[in-house]
Amino acid sequence: MIIVMKPQAKESSITNIIDIIERKGLQAHLSAGKEVTIIGVVGDKSQLDNQNLEIAEDVDKIVTVTESYKLANKKFHPEPTIVQVGNVFIGGDELVIMSGPCAVESKEQVLETAHAIKKSGAQILRGGAYKPRTSPYAFQGLEEEGLRFMKEAREETGLSVICEVTSLAAIEAAVKYVDMLQIGARNMQNFYLLKEAGKSGLPVLLKRGLSATIDEWLNAAEYIIAEGNPNVVLCERGIRTFETATRNTLDISAVPVIKTKSHLPVIVDPSHATGVRGYVKPLSRCAIAAGADGLMIETHPNPSIALSDGPQSLNFSQFEELCNDLRPFANLAGKKF
Amino acid sequence: MIIVMKPQAKESSITNIIDIIERKGLQAHLSAGKEVTIIGVVGDKSQLDNQNLEIAEDVDKIVTVTESYKLANKKFHPEPTIVQVGNVFIGGDELVIMSGPCAVESKEQVLETAHAIKKSGAQILRGGAYKPRTSPYAFQGLEEEGLRFMKEAREETGLSVICEVTSLAAIEAAVKYVDMLQIGARNMQNFYLLKEAGKSGLPVLLKRGLSATIDEWLNAAEYIIAEGNPNVVLCERGIRTFETATRNTLDISAVPVIKTKSHLPVIVDPSHATGVRGYVKPLSRCAIAAGADGLMIETHPNPSIALSDGPQSLNFSQFEELCNDLRPFANLAGKKF
Amino acid sequence: MIIVMKPQAKESSITNIIDIIERKGLQAHLSAGKEVTIIGVVGDKSQLDNQNLEIAEDVDKIVTVTESYKLANKKFHPEPTIVQVGNVFIGGDELVIMSGPCAVESKEQVLETAHAIKKSGAQILRGGAYKPRTSPYAFQGLEEEGLRFMKEAREETGLSVICEVTSLAAIEAAVKYVDMLQIGARNMQNFYLLKEAGKSGLPVLLKRGLSATIDEWLNAAEYIIAEGNPNVVLCERGIRTFETATRNTLDISAVPVIKTKSHLPVIVDPSHATGVRGYVKPLSRCAIAAGADGLMIETHPNPSIALSDGPQSLNFSQFEELCNDLRPFANLAGKKF
Amino acid sequence: MIIVMKPQAKESSITNIIDIIERKGLQAHLSAGKEVTIIGVVGDKSQLDNQNLEIAEDVDKIVTVTESYKLANKKFHPEPTIVQVGNVFIGGDELVIMSGPCAVESKEQVLETAHAIKKSGAQILRGGAYKPRTSPYAFQGLEEEGLRFMKEAREETGLSVICEVTSLAAIEAAVKYVDMLQIGARNMQNFYLLKEAGKSGLPVLLKRGLSATIDEWLNAAEYIIAEGNPNVVLCERGIRTFETATRNTLDISAVPVIKTKSHLPVIVDPSHATGVRGYVKPLSRCAIAAGADGLMIETHPNPSIALSDGPQSLNFSQFEELCNDLRPFANLAGKKF
Repeated sequence: MIIVMKPQAKESSITNIIDIIERKGLQAHLSAGKEVTIIGVVGDKSQLDNQNLEIAEDVDKIVTVTESYKLANKKFHPEPTIVQVGNVFIGGDELVIMSGPCAVESKEQVLETAHAIKKSGAQILRGGAYKPRTSPYAFQGLEEEGLRFMKEAREETGLSVICEVTSLAAIEAAVKYVDMLQIGARNMQNFYLLKEAGKSGLPVLLKRGLSATIDEWLNAAEYIIAEGNPNVVLCERGIRTFETATRNTLDISAVPVIKTKSHLPVIVDPSHATGVRGYVKPLSRCAIAAGADGLMIETHPNPSIALSDGPQSLNFSQFEELCNDLRPFANLAGKKF
Repeated sequence: MIIVMKPQAKESSITNIIDIIERKGLQAHLSAGKEVTIIGVVGDKSQLDNQNLEIAEDVDKIVTVTESYKLANKKFHPEPTIVQVGNVFIGGDELVIMSGPCAVESKEQVLETAHAIKKSGAQILRGGAYKPRTSPYAFQGLEEEGLRFMKEAREETGLSVICEVTSLAAIEAAVKYVDMLQIGARNMQNFYLLKEAGKSGLPVLLKRGLSATIDEWLNAAEYIIAEGNPNVVLCERGIRTFETATRNTLDISAVPVIKTKSHLPVIVDPSHATGVRGYVKPLSRCAIAAGADGLMIETHPNPSIALSDGPQSLNFSQFEELCNDLRPFANLAGKKF
Repeated sequence: MIIVMKPQAKESSITNIIDIIERKGLQAHLSAGKEVTIIGVVGDKSQLDNQNLEIAEDVDKIVTVTESYKLANKKFHPEPTIVQVGNVFIGGDELVIMSGPCAVESKEQVLETAHAIKKSGAQILRGGAYKPRTSPYAFQGLEEEGLRFMKEAREETGLSVICEVTSLAAIEAAVKYVDMLQIGARNMQNFYLLKEAGKSGLPVLLKRGLSATIDEWLNAAEYIIAEGNPNVVLCERGIRTFETATRNTLDISAVPVIKTKSHLPVIVDPSHATGVRGYVKPLSRCAIAAGADGLMIETHPNPSIALSDGPQSLNFSQFEELCNDLRPFANLAGKKF
Repeated sequence: MIIVMKPQAKESSITNIIDIIERKGLQAHLSAGKEVTIIGVVGDKSQLDNQNLEIAEDVDKIVTVTESYKLANKKFHPEPTIVQVGNVFIGGDELVIMSGPCAVESKEQVLETAHAIKKSGAQILRGGAYKPRTSPYAFQGLEEEGLRFMKEAREETGLSVICEVTSLAAIEAAVKYVDMLQIGARNMQNFYLLKEAGKSGLPVLLKRGLSATIDEWLNAAEYIIAEGNPNVVLCERGIRTFETATRNTLDISAVPVIKTKSHLPVIVDPSHATGVRGYVKPLSRCAIAAGADGLMIETHPNPSIALSDGPQSLNFSQFEELCNDLRPFANLAGKKF
């Protein structure tokens, strides 16, 4: 932590800051430059959390040099984390594909999808039972009934299953049926939900918020891990920018950035990032090439009548073709698939 | 709703779209241009919700011409809504100032603040008992105890009180103590929470999400109103942009835009928008001049030791000076204060 | 300038950095913390410009603590600059309104506009003779003929006149006819043009780029001032964000931020910021309340047939009404108008 | 073009719009819905360019359905364009790599770089002789002397060469020395420069502006092509967003979007997009996987003393390793390299 003083800061203001630092048992290192004086703080800076030094006299700004997340930080945990979901391992040498419909609509739809995606190579079935929708008049999900269909699909196919949760009630229901919880982009900073997901004991897929920085995303993961649950997988799904040619802007750089800053696995969701079926293939290739540990791809038996996100969903033959296309890219990037 | 066909769309593709529209009981109006053909849809377009016409053959794009929010829409409710909070009215001819600490820390802090802000002219006491914080290691709030202090402050001063809620449990506690619920920016699209707030019967202050468009914000309000609770007040508190000189970018245009699109009252929070105490005064003036119905201003007996957001909080003499400064601006803008 | 080392940086890496710093004649101040070591640099940091310390071994990041602009910086020039344009003074105790059409279309249009805006209180006539347009098929301006019309309007009315310049040729023509040059948002980082505008000797209105940070904007001003031309006025005209309800997002906070960081005058252009005529009044009030030194408002004798930006232009009676509305706000904010 | 009327629009307002449309020789198709009436316009809509129908009475908004760029539009030119630069072809079945220093510093530096990158497989040498820099105090380039060094490198190695131009004077100099002109991100909407580059007869590399939408970028290309110069190559180099972990956010989706909307070749510059050397490899792989026709990669004999952008530059052994790494990805994506 570095405190930058204003030019011409009074001697007494500098002394005051040093006093506060030393009174808390930390050390202050002074660098008096021609224009400005800076004060480096050495020691446990959490002692200073509520001192609000920014508004002490003659302070220009505070620069923090260490990240606020610790458990998600690669600096303190250099080995990559491998997260087990049912009998699937994310973050190791396998490319993991999660696929299925945006929304669970019926038992038949879920079972048909599960068989199809398994045949093409996917390892995890996704399907929303609790749907966060922009408009209250859009389809909101089958809730617990949807979870039951997912469990049946797991039993029939051996696929692991994942569902999004949007409330404590949804978590309490989901733990009875699924292998992994998903926290959606809109809830990435619903800290209450993060803590409850942490307590659930299930692995958690944490989607990046539409306007979340990578640091905020890792702090959100920290909430889950801090509850004793280290099994967090991150999912880049596009951020909000001024560009409207795609629904969101896939921040593909997030993949190597996460690999540099954290030990957690990271996957990519090109379906939600673009909102356009035709861009799923190039961006899936791209995610693999950038080093992602997996993909989340929306599929539907008949996208033209899907109750949610049809325009970005693939049908089964398109998904089959996609998997075949991706296989050599995965292998080239060092992943089995 | 307008369907734009691709150039050289096949006759059969156009017929197909018209068939779908007419089969659902709507009318299709065809405009065949030199480059492209467009099809206007007349009737209840919700009938087409799950038809995913975007991916039908030769369709280029779908343009929606009506907003998805109805209850929050000025078109269908031209009279401005006035929301009653205790004995305060927001959206009428009075400028309403909500003030208090970011986080409730102690009974003394809350009572001292309540007396001070009332003296300067504020009508509503704010104070967070459930704090959403980026890092799990930051102070998370006093929870129900904090709510109790707020209620005591109300009883002592006659001020109305508002608290942020972040979960169903928090709502269940808050309804016993406060006059108005606040949904924070990070929970603006926590649709589960919006519905529960709607059911609570209390008026709701709905902050704009950091990356929410005004349309999404009004759709979030729609979730609350659709539960039978029309008492929603909107609060602009800055959006996330590339600029880092302020913590967020106050989108002041949102005030006249909301006044044009909706009948709901709108207030402005310059403290969170900028994160800098020195900018609170110019931006408060600015909000009033733009037509805001009120302000939310953070105050603290001693900002330099505030447990949350100290750097943007005013002390009591600064708040007193602010209110005096704002009074003539409010009057000029047609508001009593 | 502060160099933050990686955790577990090798002793030799730290010594290496200190050597580089000291070899350049600067001092290095070391703070060895538990997690990281930081090195404060004292002295003329321009000596280190091409050392690229970011990529030296074990360096985590470089934090700069001083701004790269000097001449535009309030720290070294605390007195506000007042810029003279013809016989108008911007940055003093007068509110200055620049008004006129987006594009100069004819002599009659310009003269009619000049008389009308003068009557309502504007002091400077604006009008584009060189128009930067997104599409090459849109009207590109009358060029030198347009400048001549502006000069005639000045002679007839006594108003000062300003025109946008987009090339060296345009500057060479404009200096013969106008009192102030305008650098548009799209050219804010056309450094070649900035230097030429600096050399012209005329005062310069520098609009903020659509995605320019305030620091980049002040660095652009520095380019002009560094050519010996201190007469720069800044103009906030909206930045690009995800919000589409307005054409751009007016960053009103930029006004107090500029007043804090720089001594240069700053005005606001609500017409371009919003692109909507109906929002010009609330945002003009707002700019004045925030402390702006002036406004730029588009007017046209008949906006419905304007060759450029008609939808955001006011007709003369709307402009007259606007000026009357703004007068008491200006006075309250301490400006004569 | 579609005109959406306000709810309860008066009959006379609708008639007025239809009159304007028909008077200009176009056809109006009316769809009168329950809530709103829409009017489709058929015919040459450029006739309506200056009618500003947005502000006619009772008009809610105008929706355009055709792109304003024609020559750059794939709809009217379905075959991909292949651009010849010296003896290199961009947009065909070859992956083209442009490489070299951000800034030309000396003859030795340029020649050494040219030989090294040629050996590793690059086909085009890049090097800036006119440098647009945020601060006026940073190195501004060697100008014509730098161009001469580039030409010598071409003669010695047979590589084609490209230089950025920032003014008419720079274009006039560059045409004597180089094979391709580069328009940088900050000048993407310097329409004057675009026209001059169009007239030069040389192929042009057009970088995307930091806040330019893909539509605006294609309109900028249209300016060049409209001067009779169809040899435009687009370069995605990152856009400005709120994320600060990378210098800009590489919008990799732009590659498939451009391939869908335009016939022009598109390459990717991962060096400028991220500003971090360590991210160049994953993002280069990624660009190839997404379908890019080439890459622009900064290299320098000794990045730690580069006068510009050292931290993102590769040294020659890193570049050699990169090219070897990329070869199988290029082949898998169907490109020779």
